[in-house]
Amino acid sequence: MKKNRKIVIIGGVACGPKAAARIKRLNPSADVTLVEKGELLSYAGCGLPFYISGEVHDHNELMATPTGVVRDTQFFNMVKDIKVLNHTLAKSVDRENKNVCAVKIDTGECTELPYDVLILAIGGQTFKPNVPGLDLKGVHFLQTVEDAQKIRNKSGDLTGKHAVIIGAGLIGIEVTESFKKQGMTVTVIEKADTVLPELLDTEIAFHVHQELKANGVNLKLNESVEAILGDDQGNAVMVKTSSGDVQADMVLVAVGVRPNVGLARDMGLEIGETGAIKVNHFMQTSDPSIYAGGDCVESVSLVSGKPVYAPMGSTANKHGRVMADHICGIETPFRGVAGTAICKLFNLNIAKTGLSEKQAKSLGYDCLTVLNPSPDKAHFLKDAKMIIIKMVVEKLTARLLGVQIVGPGDVAKRMDVAVTTITAGRPVTDIAHLDLAYAPPFSPAMDNIITAANIAENKLKGIGLAYNPLEVKAKIDRGEDFVFLDVRSPQELEAMRIDDPRILNIPLGKLRSSLDKLPKDKEIVPFCKISLRGYEAQRILQGEGFEHVKYMDGGLVCWPFEKTVNPA
Amino acid sequence: MKKNRKIVIIGGVACGPKAAARIKRLNPSADVTLVEKGELLSYAGCGLPFYISGEVHDHNELMATPTGVVRDTQFFNMVKDIKVLNHTLAKSVDRENKNVCAVKIDTGECTELPYDVLILAIGGQTFKPNVPGLDLKGVHFLQTVEDAQKIRNKSGDLTGKHAVIIGAGLIGIEVTESFKKQGMTVTVIEKADTVLPELLDTEIAFHVHQELKANGVNLKLNESVEAILGDDQGNAVMVKTSSGDVQADMVLVAVGVRPNVGLARDMGLEIGETGAIKVNHFMQTSDPSIYAGGDCVESVSLVSGKPVYAPMGSTANKHGRVMADHICGIETPFRGVAGTAICKLFNLNIAKTGLSEKQAKSLGYDCLTVLNPSPDKAHFLKDAKMIIIKMVVEKLTARLLGVQIVGPGDVAKRMDVAVTTITAGRPVTDIAHLDLAYAPPFSPAMDNIITAANIAENKLKGIGLAYNPLEVKAKIDRGEDFVFLDVRSPQELEAMRIDDPRILNIPLGKLRSSLDKLPKDKEIVPFCKISLRGYEAQRILQGEGFEHVKYMDGGLVCWPFEKTVNPA
Repeated sequence: MKKNRKIVIIGGVACGPKAAARIKRLNPSADVTLVEKGELLSYAGCGLPFYISGEVHDHNELMATPTGVVRDTQFFNMVKDIKVLNHTLAKSVDRENKNVCAVKIDTGECTELPYDVLILAIGGQTFKPNVPGLDLKGVHFLQTVEDAQKIRNKSGDLTGKHAVIIGAGLIGIEVTESFKKQGMTVTVIEKADTVLPELLDTEIAFHVHQELKANGVNLKLNESVEAILGDDQGNAVMVKTSSGDVQADMVLVAVGVRPNVGLARDMGLEIGETGAIKVNHFMQTSDPSIYAGGDCVESVSLVSGKPVYAPMGSTANKHGRVMADHICGIETPFRGVAGTAICKLFNLNIAKTGLSEKQAKSLGYDCLTVLNPSPDKAHFLKDAKMIIIKMVVEKLTARLLGVQIVGPGDVAKRMDVAVTTITAGRPVTDIAHLDLAYAPPFSPAMDNIITAANIAENKLKGIGLAYNPLEVKAKIDRGEDFVFLDVRSPQELEAMRIDDPRILNIPLGKLRSSLDKLPKDKEIVPFCKISLRGYEAQRILQGEGFEHVKYMDGGLVCWPFEKTVNPA
Repeated sequence: MKKNRKIVIIGGVACGPKAAARIKRLNPSADVTLVEKGELLSYAGCGLPFYISGEVHDHNELMATPTGVVRDTQFFNMVKDIKVLNHTLAKSVDRENKNVCAVKIDTGECTELPYDVLILAIGGQTFKPNVPGLDLKGVHFLQTVEDAQKIRNKSGDLTGKHAVIIGAGLIGIEVTESFKKQGMTVTVIEKADTVLPELLDTEIAFHVHQELKANGVNLKLNESVEAILGDDQGNAVMVKTSSGDVQADMVLVAVGVRPNVGLARDMGLEIGETGAIKVNHFMQTSDPSIYAGGDCVESVSLVSGKPVYAPMGSTANKHGRVMADHICGIETPFRGVAGTAICKLFNLNIAKTGLSEKQAKSLGYDCLTVLNPSPDKAHFLKDAKMIIIKMVVEKLTARLLGVQIVGPGDVAKRMDVAVTTITAGRPVTDIAHLDLAYAPPFSPAMDNIITAANIAENKLKGIGLAYNPLEVKAKIDRGEDFVFLDVRSPQELEAMRIDDPRILNIPLGKLRSSLDKLPKDKEIVPFCKISLRGYEAQRILQGEGFEHVKYMDGGLVCWPFEKTVNPA
């Protein structure tokens, strides 16, 4: 790279500063200018819910390095030798003459910034749905530190106020806890039939619904918002939905993020089918002197090979590094995204990578699924906590297509093993052989994800035959006749059970001596608490000549419908 | 598999019961007999330290299924249809006639057990060193529940007693905390110059030494035990080492585990070069009707391809499944071990997989190393905790050879990503591209292991040039002249610093304007708290024409030698 090549970067949140810093490290003599329309630079947008909840006291903490240095304009100038123009809008780009027209927002003063290489890191913006009342006072979006400050500035008088969150995607779910921590009454409105509909299948989302209810959150599913109503001072007071009215002192609209492509479109750059800027593996747009990365571009799914829009702070950082390398002559192609997401909701951890069952089926994959509920560490330790793993596996190739994990226990560890396996393109059966880190405080002797992989292997080989709980419920709803065989002990049955006339209780230890109680001509669906014994019952009954046996995957723990608990 | 094929399994702890249960699930009509010399079956040997500490109250909890059913003889008979002979010793095996001679320990009664397939899951035994006094009262080993009961039975009068642990391997380290929790004064004696010498390199082990000292444990390194001395009642009272005497009311000897191979040797089965039973990928011994698994066999290292002895409960379970599959006609070869281990010591988590730097070098690998200390989640969250990752990477191939992680934060998650990558045989650079699960409560935007992989990539490409802290110390000890450049702020320097005449302090932000303070002919070794700024200083100085610059990897956090902290 020639000396003093001029690099102009538009956007100062995640991808932009990352690219700038990496370029300066690879080529200390590069002439790098960063243009940012706001005041703030290089902040952790994903930290905003924690700023709202008060866990992060000062917004400067979101802009600090791990050693506590605030990454402000001076920091970029002094430490990184990067020129920063903040409060500055990149108004237009003259691609022919390689020139950016930048306008100082306060003064209207215009600066011409010539470039050899231009980087667009112009982010995404929260989607504003076509609903009346979005401009009322007390109606918020959450994208910038300034947005979060507006919400936080009400602090002190929030206790007992009514917050309504429109949209139960990742941001809506994360902010739910922040609002509850501020003492507000919270209602979440989602038009789909589950929360996190882009991430989770129904029987997994069920556990999130339970957690919301357990924490006093008012959850409204299958409802769409028709209007936000205000009083005569212009304050929001009510959210009107397809099913009624909800009182509101504050409304957060969180129905999605869209890529910021206005400038790119004006410049004539190619936009991809997802509506985000199209880039190649080196993050070059259709103009090879112009790179783009972060929330304004589309990525490719590692699983499906299709373009996806997956705005994530972690991905934006990777983009920044990839483009910096390429600008400086190093080829480290961006390999695509697995589609990983994780969040915390009260005591529940929720994560997903790859495709959900719904998504896999809609893409035409012939897949099987696994549900494995089990404690996250040795069960004899008091602080062992349940996690439920759902795997989606392609039948023909045994390839792991996706994983969802939910529970109060350690989901992140297992998720990252799944991500690594999916990225390596390895079959699910590989996981069963991993020499994962085992000691009682960290996992069971067979880690949860290993057991899930073993279950998948059993199913792929036809050794394990199972129904998903939703399939069992559909059979019941269709009025099908079968033996719903609970193989738990009478004490366990007493404590919690499914009330259905098809239920028959034979504890596993008595199954071999009770075969005469079971009809050979009816289908039998054994289960237990987690369906380890349910699976064992399936194998025993098959060995005894029962031909129609499938256990219920995940057992009672994964049964998302009514259960009778602890009757008097 | 023909009906009612007779399977005899010797050993009832981990591999044996696992194989038995899997065989019965694959072939419910198999005739399975389990022979165990003790009372107890299928217990979690790895849980013994938690039984000693009192965290696990009843030893039955170590034998329970995750749903709380105790896996005793009756459980195996009733639920699993497995015949159990406990208190029974397999005395000899007639391979020609396929017959086991089993002796009931209490009565001396002999039973002949004919077999079609025999499984040896006869475990390991704690090594008894050649030291006088091992038979004194109060001298313990820790292998079985009975051993742990002997230690626990002293409970109530343990407070203030003096415990001496001989050997700072995994068991010694795990029990240290158990003993402290019982109120004892604890001394750990290790003949090597660090604890966990089989797992950790010196600069990583340093953090374990610090944690032991911070918790009041008396650590004696480079000392060998010469004798345990008793009083006239035969009670242990003193441990005599190469450097002096240590008072002792209780002594735990934990200097290693050896495979139990007596029976296999008597039978004429092949023993491998590690001293453990040699098996093929299906866990067959040199006699194809005889399988062996668990702590009595040797495995192959996935990294080096060489035989290793790596007794682990998690591996024993995998062995059991592999042999059961093969016995029932399914080929799922055992792929070897990565050599993963993890343990918790007070507030420190310690893990390793693959090869340490010491091990890699002794095997002749040309490798580079990375030290990355960073918080385990977004640094702006109050509960973010430091972890230090050390990577060992083969220079020629970029293959990840091994990883060590230590710190109060979440080491297990990153370790399992490393294990998955090593097992897939993928280069370290793959890790940099993983779409790992990111949200502030779970990781930094760039996960610690991604940053470590990026550092490795920088070094592989010659962009990052660094010394390990031990190399810097060696330079100092040799009296070499260089500029030891601390690029932190004066405030940080005030709080903590290395006192050496070579130290020069120029904060990174002033480096570009202070180049005249630096000699061009001397070597410069920049560093900071974690050496992110140290690396940046290296790049800046190189860009300015300084030719001899290498930063100190890991910075002050990884400097295992004297630091001046918080001077008045």
